[in-house]
Amino acid sequence: MDIEIPLENKKEESLTDWYNEVIEKAELCDKRYPIKGMNVWYSYGLAIMKNIDALLRKEVEEMGYQEVQFPVLIPKNEFMKEAEHIKGFENYVYWVTHAGKNELDIPLALRPTSETAMYPIFSLWVRSHSDLPLRVYQIAEVFRYETKQTRAFMRVREIHFFEAHTCHTDFEDAEKQVEEDLKIMEKFSKALSIPYLQCKRPEWDKFAGAFYSIGLDAVMPNKKTNQIGSIHHYKDNFSRPYNIKYEDLDGKQKYVHQTTYGMSERLLGAIIGIHGDNRGLVLPPKIAPYQIVIVPVLLKSHKKEIEKRAKELLNRLLELGFRVKLDERDLRPGSKYYYWEIRGVPIRIEIGLKEFMENNITIVRRDTFEKTNVKLKSKNILSIIKDILEDIERNLMKKAEELMKEGIIEVRKKEEIANLDGILRAGWCGKEECGLEIEKLGDFGILGIDVKSKENMNCIICNEKGKV
Amino acid sequence: MDIEIPLENKKEESLTDWYNEVIEKAELCDKRYPIKGMNVWYSYGLAIMKNIDALLRKEVEEMGYQEVQFPVLIPKNEFMKEAEHIKGFENYVYWVTHAGKNELDIPLALRPTSETAMYPIFSLWVRSHSDLPLRVYQIAEVFRYETKQTRAFMRVREIHFFEAHTCHTDFEDAEKQVEEDLKIMEKFSKALSIPYLQCKRPEWDKFAGAFYSIGLDAVMPNKKTNQIGSIHHYKDNFSRPYNIKYEDLDGKQKYVHQTTYGMSERLLGAIIGIHGDNRGLVLPPKIAPYQIVIVPVLLKSHKKEIEKRAKELLNRLLELGFRVKLDERDLRPGSKYYYWEIRGVPIRIEIGLKEFMENNITIVRRDTFEKTNVKLKSKNILSIIKDILEDIERNLMKKAEELMKEGIIEVRKKEEIANLDGILRAGWCGKEECGLEIEKLGDFGILGIDVKSKENMNCIICNEKGKV
Repeated sequence: MDIEIPLENKKEESLTDWYNEVIEKAELCDKRYPIKGMNVWYSYGLAIMKNIDALLRKEVEEMGYQEVQFPVLIPKNEFMKEAEHIKGFENYVYWVTHAGKNELDIPLALRPTSETAMYPIFSLWVRSHSDLPLRVYQIAEVFRYETKQTRAFMRVREIHFFEAHTCHTDFEDAEKQVEEDLKIMEKFSKALSIPYLQCKRPEWDKFAGAFYSIGLDAVMPNKKTNQIGSIHHYKDNFSRPYNIKYEDLDGKQKYVHQTTYGMSERLLGAIIGIHGDNRGLVLPPKIAPYQIVIVPVLLKSHKKEIEKRAKELLNRLLELGFRVKLDERDLRPGSKYYYWEIRGVPIRIEIGLKEFMENNITIVRRDTFEKTNVKLKSKNILSIIKDILEDIERNLMKKAEELMKEGIIEVRKKEEIANLDGILRAGWCGKEECGLEIEKLGDFGILGIDVKSKENMNCIICNEKGKV
Repeated sequence: MDIEIPLENKKEESLTDWYNEVIEKAELCDKRYPIKGMNVWYSYGLAIMKNIDALLRKEVEEMGYQEVQFPVLIPKNEFMKEAEHIKGFENYVYWVTHAGKNELDIPLALRPTSETAMYPIFSLWVRSHSDLPLRVYQIAEVFRYETKQTRAFMRVREIHFFEAHTCHTDFEDAEKQVEEDLKIMEKFSKALSIPYLQCKRPEWDKFAGAFYSIGLDAVMPNKKTNQIGSIHHYKDNFSRPYNIKYEDLDGKQKYVHQTTYGMSERLLGAIIGIHGDNRGLVLPPKIAPYQIVIVPVLLKSHKKEIEKRAKELLNRLLELGFRVKLDERDLRPGSKYYYWEIRGVPIRIEIGLKEFMENNITIVRRDTFEKTNVKLKSKNILSIIKDILEDIERNLMKKAEELMKEGIIEVRKKEEIANLDGILRAGWCGKEECGLEIEKLGDFGILGIDVKSKENMNCIICNEKGKV
């Protein structure tokens, strides 16, 4: 790959082409695998995704979740136990019907999600109230036979997936879990600098089998939403068919109430789309495979000295706990700048002749390209770099929040809706008839009721009291 | 689970029952999943496996490997390109034939190994000699329809698998890779305290499609081998059907030479079987989820003070970088000892009234149950614990090496073979006819030629010069 060519596509001109080009040039995934929608993770893309996973693991484990891993295959008879769930997934499931030269007695589903793999086992794990709450999660691939146009990280057929599952004594305790999950999302999304809407989905759009669903939607630069996560309250909808019961303090057998919490590689799609610019990726520091790249500008006259200094700096920064790369390749500095800009490394440190002579380094921020000179001997180098990284995180969040705001249009009357482009913020009484009426007003769907907003707005259809 | 009951089975009386009981009571995996040979990883078992993975990642990345991830599914036409490979796997492959309500045009294999997923893409990645060597690995699940009796971690149908794949300019460069892989194994197995045999497999037992295969076999307490890893030289056997070519310095298109390196969750099986004792697991410190468990022995009179001291110690040990658990549950100390012994935690620290009064702690080793008293204020606590952990690693290795030695019987004449039980060390000229003859002498197979041994032994069949 000729790394000196900057991006050919501009984000503001063609978001899709720009998005695909960034993915290719930053080496996130290779889409040439011979199955559509199943892509190969390059090591750089995989490293970012694994950092996202690690961050998520930390957040959920602090809240009492334990990591487990269930098999990929689910026997058809287990898969078919909850009617709504089957209806929601039957068009999307891959089926294994043969093994070796034999036809299997019972076809096996490739998990599209793991309720039906986990719950037969939960019915063995949960015996008494002292086993509750049960909180487990897994990070693994799920499979969905998407028929619509696929897009890397956004709509794929093999999905890198996080799914958390809980069991509780009753409805209220499960409600508390939903609240905790929302708190996890708040902390987690802050580290990614991704703001999001939090909407209780309308009845006709909830997860297959859920009592209710909360969608967590990021707003992309094209003013469309990207569901980066969802939290569901299942009530006892699954515990009944899967027989997950516990003996309560009063000696009675009761069905557990359940919740789930799902996220996927769409998080990465959101990060690319929302933070990226016309020079490529811009990575939030907490998930960047390298937070700092050191580029020595080598002049023949001082090659060895500058190389030596760059190595000393590398070791010092590694010792301070940063993820750092020293780019020693035999390339022009400009090529290296392009290379690491496309890959979104938050900080570049340049050491050239000027820096060498003056005993300092030049720090260049990826988000603003602002330059800072720091004395090499400064004892504050740790706090200076930490501050810059934190400022990058804040700045990305600020810009993403502005983008989200721009994408949302407040509507008071139904006549205003017709030709608007973006996410509409309007009153809705919550009744299905009005909701479906709203959806008919334009080419869009209802995300749901804003869970964060306490505001009341009258329904734009029936004018009765409603929510946002 | 009543945690006060020690193991019911004795290792020396019934290895299989003991092995299954340890897996269940230490909560490594749950075998009650409704598909035979596909088990559920409990969080404790998963944590051990992930520590093994992390150790392996470190070793291979130091040697230039990069992590990637390929899809689980492989189109049948890609799968069927290398004849020997197909023959080796056709009885073991799960086939996806349907998706949603449609029958697929091309059936999709669940990867039993990833040659046929990776190599069509390698043919795109490799263009010129400057792309070589290509060294990638992935850690993911593979699927094999085993018809023999399954056993947790040892023979399962969904296998947690490490596979490394390389491409080289020529045969010799691939040979060097094999040497490097053997070095990785040496370092890695030392951290697990697992010694192993290193045998070039006979022609009829090499990997399907390989030019030659080296098996890495641990010796289990029943004197049977457990193949914990294998390294293969493919020559250009795969690069020809998959068209992986590069332009050499002389401008000519040449096929690459390839190697692979595989390991699996059998490593965990070896660790359980080889190091475990009649109180449960004994974990090598580098992969133990907790290296230290602190058990405060709480007397009513000094409950708060001892609790406080235990917490201070916890924080101090965490700061020093150890993985530590403070067991604050309301249980008798004896129950806690059993609980953590079954789970193989290398070091237990007891703080009771005596320790409290004398301002010290009692350190108990899991492998020897040897006790050491250490002054709480000792500035050497870091080095004392480090030394003990290293000594545990060495001691486990020593015992495992003795076990391996006991399992190997040297045989000079074919008449001696008949009723021997174990691994036989004998001369073999390397000819297939003599090899097959040897296999007929007893109920066993030939592991291959000892790669480490430089000794010459005459063939026990034809008496010609041969190798061990």
